[in-house]
Amino acid sequence: MPSPLEQATADAFTWKVRVYWEDTDAGGIVFYANYLKFFERARTEWLRHLGIGQQQLRDDVGGMFIVSATQVNYHRPARLDDLLLVTARVREAGRASLTIEQSAWKLPAEGEEPGAAVCLCEGSIRIGWVQADSMRPGRIPAQILSALSGESLDT
Amino acid sequence: MPSPLEQATADAFTWKVRVYWEDTDAGGIVFYANYLKFFERARTEWLRHLGIGQQQLRDDVGGMFIVSATQVNYHRPARLDDLLLVTARVREAGRASLTIEQSAWKLPAEGEEPGAAVCLCEGSIRIGWVQADSMRPGRIPAQILSALSGESLDT
Amino acid sequence: MPSPLEQATADAFTWKVRVYWEDTDAGGIVFYANYLKFFERARTEWLRHLGIGQQQLRDDVGGMFIVSATQVNYHRPARLDDLLLVTARVREAGRASLTIEQSAWKLPAEGEEPGAAVCLCEGSIRIGWVQADSMRPGRIPAQILSALSGESLDT
Amino acid sequence: MPSPLEQATADAFTWKVRVYWEDTDAGGIVFYANYLKFFERARTEWLRHLGIGQQQLRDDVGGMFIVSATQVNYHRPARLDDLLLVTARVREAGRASLTIEQSAWKLPAEGEEPGAAVCLCEGSIRIGWVQADSMRPGRIPAQILSALSGESLDT
Repeated sequence: MPSPLEQATADAFTWKVRVYWEDTDAGGIVFYANYLKFFERARTEWLRHLGIGQQQLRDDVGGMFIVSATQVNYHRPARLDDLLLVTARVREAGRASLTIEQSAWKLPAEGEEPGAAVCLCEGSIRIGWVQADSMRPGRIPAQILSALSGESLDT
Repeated sequence: MPSPLEQATADAFTWKVRVYWEDTDAGGIVFYANYLKFFERARTEWLRHLGIGQQQLRDDVGGMFIVSATQVNYHRPARLDDLLLVTARVREAGRASLTIEQSAWKLPAEGEEPGAAVCLCEGSIRIGWVQADSMRPGRIPAQILSALSGESLDT
Repeated sequence: MPSPLEQATADAFTWKVRVYWEDTDAGGIVFYANYLKFFERARTEWLRHLGIGQQQLRDDVGGMFIVSATQVNYHRPARLDDLLLVTARVREAGRASLTIEQSAWKLPAEGEEPGAAVCLCEGSIRIGWVQADSMRPGRIPAQILSALSGESLDT
Repeated sequence: MPSPLEQATADAFTWKVRVYWEDTDAGGIVFYANYLKFFERARTEWLRHLGIGQQQLRDDVGGMFIVSATQVNYHRPARLDDLLLVTARVREAGRASLTIEQSAWKLPAEGEEPGAAVCLCEGSIRIGWVQADSMRPGRIPAQILSALSGESLDT
């Protein structure tokens, strides 16, 4: 029977993130807004893995992604030095927006039980496409939509 | 008839936030995760306005707020030098968690129409209370709940 | 005899900054890199006080400031909820670069001795001027140089 | 004859950093304060490479590093999607403080000349050691000093 982590990463792109001082706050834990940064790193690396560079796209077609909605539930905190696994997978894909399902897991430290991964938070990010100069919405380039949909997503 | 901004600020605490370089990204706009920082500044100033200091509380009772869920819809981007008004108001208050409804508005620049405030984003933040050392959930101190509920909230 | 704070603020622009959760790290103190943000807020507000908007300048003349060197000595840490006073004053002004002397002070909390302000850190920031599209260096607009030099700087 | 990058990395620890949206500002480049984060990631990974975990150290001996001075010269900007190489090497080591020499380089993109690495910025970071609860200075644990000094530093 698949573990929760195995279920979360099935058909998902995954990216490892290390927790540094910059990510933490005086509560001794990762500042909650920073998980949105971790989620975005995973989306960016996913696009890169598919051969899509965002700076390149902007130079070429003048457009960029913009986040239109975020929703995150926080279950457990991460701390300095923790190694996280961040997942990303398409939940819904339309011509003008994408909804990406994402989660962050704390990976077991060396010597800990491999199955001991803990889900820290999970949520969904809706992104649209805009012209960079005018910020007017447009259609997501077909190249990106087909890459995200057709991909087997195993890294 | 009240304007959208008047409706949003009725019975709400409000706090002004200026957009600096640190808040923006290469898209030329405020990085979306940073609105969570702006929302938190407003919540913190609201507590301060009610006589509640979070560092003091932690020193005194060993507890602190922790964010358990965030949900934000982004409508329009803010840019460098914009002056924002951030609102905060209790939507639900329980013994162990509070849900705060928040929004950020771009205020008209000098010489612009006063009614021209634009809603940039809006959402809700659910916060719980934990013991700082163990991160175990606990009841929100009665002092805080009554202050947040009994307050007329006009600044 | 003037106090250290009085000496630091003589002929300087000053700007108050409150420490929020976002500014702190797991050491329980303000993350040192964030003082550079506080310093920049003060420089930006100084320009604004002189009638200079950076977004406006960029739209009008296509140029922007860029930081070319920073040097900061850290003496004492700030904590959540502390109220800081940040100073800024021109040390050297040339046609292509400006060196700004800055410091951050912890202001006494309510009920504390007014003279108890503590210098948290101090340093200097050298800034140049570039064309925003090419990043090529250029002369700082005369309007800015004369405003910064001719100003009596008392707020 | 060694290239500038080869000279910079000789006897230095190196760590790769990718530029994400979160690192950039409305100038279209990496916000200068964020290089201090990149430098710290390299120092942290260096310690980890030497078997030293900072969270573990704090749990075990109650102490932590604190930055007491930073000095950075910025030569060229980095942009979204750039891949950087960050270096770290001991310049001076005393019982109570360490000065670390650091630099960030833009690595050539695929298809570019390998020798085309460009130095973006360089500087030095002085760090001391404090008791985490009192923030009082103390001696850097001998374990860390000998590890940093005795190490050949090739990764």
